[in-house]
Amino acid sequence: MPIRPPYNGCMEKRIPVAPGKAYLLLNHGPVTLVSSAHGGHRNVMAASWAMPLDFVPPKVAVVIDRNTLTRELVEASGEFVLNIPTRRMARQVVQCGTHGGRDVDKFAAFGLSGSPGSSVGAPLVEGCAGWLECRVIAEPAIQGRYDLFLGEVLAAWADPRCFSDGRWHFADADGRTIHYSAGGQFFATGDAFEA
Amino acid sequence: MPIRPPYNGCMEKRIPVAPGKAYLLLNHGPVTLVSSAHGGHRNVMAASWAMPLDFVPPKVAVVIDRNTLTRELVEASGEFVLNIPTRRMARQVVQCGTHGGRDVDKFAAFGLSGSPGSSVGAPLVEGCAGWLECRVIAEPAIQGRYDLFLGEVLAAWADPRCFSDGRWHFADADGRTIHYSAGGQFFATGDAFEA
Repeated sequence: MPIRPPYNGCMEKRIPVAPGKAYLLLNHGPVTLVSSAHGGHRNVMAASWAMPLDFVPPKVAVVIDRNTLTRELVEASGEFVLNIPTRRMARQVVQCGTHGGRDVDKFAAFGLSGSPGSSVGAPLVEGCAGWLECRVIAEPAIQGRYDLFLGEVLAAWADPRCFSDGRWHFADADGRTIHYSAGGQFFATGDAFEA
Repeated sequence: MPIRPPYNGCMEKRIPVAPGKAYLLLNHGPVTLVSSAHGGHRNVMAASWAMPLDFVPPKVAVVIDRNTLTRELVEASGEFVLNIPTRRMARQVVQCGTHGGRDVDKFAAFGLSGSPGSSVGAPLVEGCAGWLECRVIAEPAIQGRYDLFLGEVLAAWADPRCFSDGRWHFADADGRTIHYSAGGQFFATGDAFEA
């Protein structure tokens, strides 16, 4: 029996992504997990409403609802991580998106592990394909009016089995990134092609 | 020889998408075409950096570079359309993303047709799978600082062959929505699955 690569729950390899390539982790519109930590608490929520905002220095935009624990932790810490999960984590993404962090420790309840990043206190969710460590760019007016947060990417990482030299290269179906539709339905990232 | 459905260059059927379902056109992170018009000029550019911002009334966020003709037309008119192209339009998407609207009439040069929307003056790009007619929500500070535009969706439409009742249902490979990576490389929207 082949030994499976050490995905979920284990520390896996990750390689740094150059600042000028960080936007490529998000450019194709995958669903994300937003992880956060402050004052001994940590949390992770699902977010489809995340996108790149600039190339260098790389910036992102993400919608974080005002009623979430994530919002509280992100506002208190001024930091978050955008994690890019794979198809093998789809069930955990739904679980993270349908449970509130005030009711349950989502890491423990859904079998997720967090490992330390290099630049922020928020944990990197293990088993993901990519990670963007972000510091909030304070824009209180749009945070308040639209739940919209902007972040500067301080460090970016990828699993070299699926992303290197600024290119996604998915080897197996379960390791592909995913795109959320609704009601527990996803699309996998599909065929690569050149126009 | 079968008669092909009247895609590019022809007026095709489209059905209204209810306001509460409009975000689903964008939720999975497809590439978009941003169309705009003002004072007898019209233009279309490619944008991967677009996402939903709210459910009802539906809102969107999109990055529009300050050096583009699109920016000029959107600021002057206060309107834009987010069009969701399909794989059969991928080459046109690249062309729209690599040429400036001041140098070429992209509709004429790349074989695109625009048809009138219901609520804005910007044209709907024919052959697309979905359309979001938007009015700019004026936020001059973030427009100026980040090239970030927020829009309220006044009307949304879909090609019923691939989207109805709030669900994408792609029948053929060329009719799938697409996700931009870089350098002319795309991913098709892949397998649908439930977690």
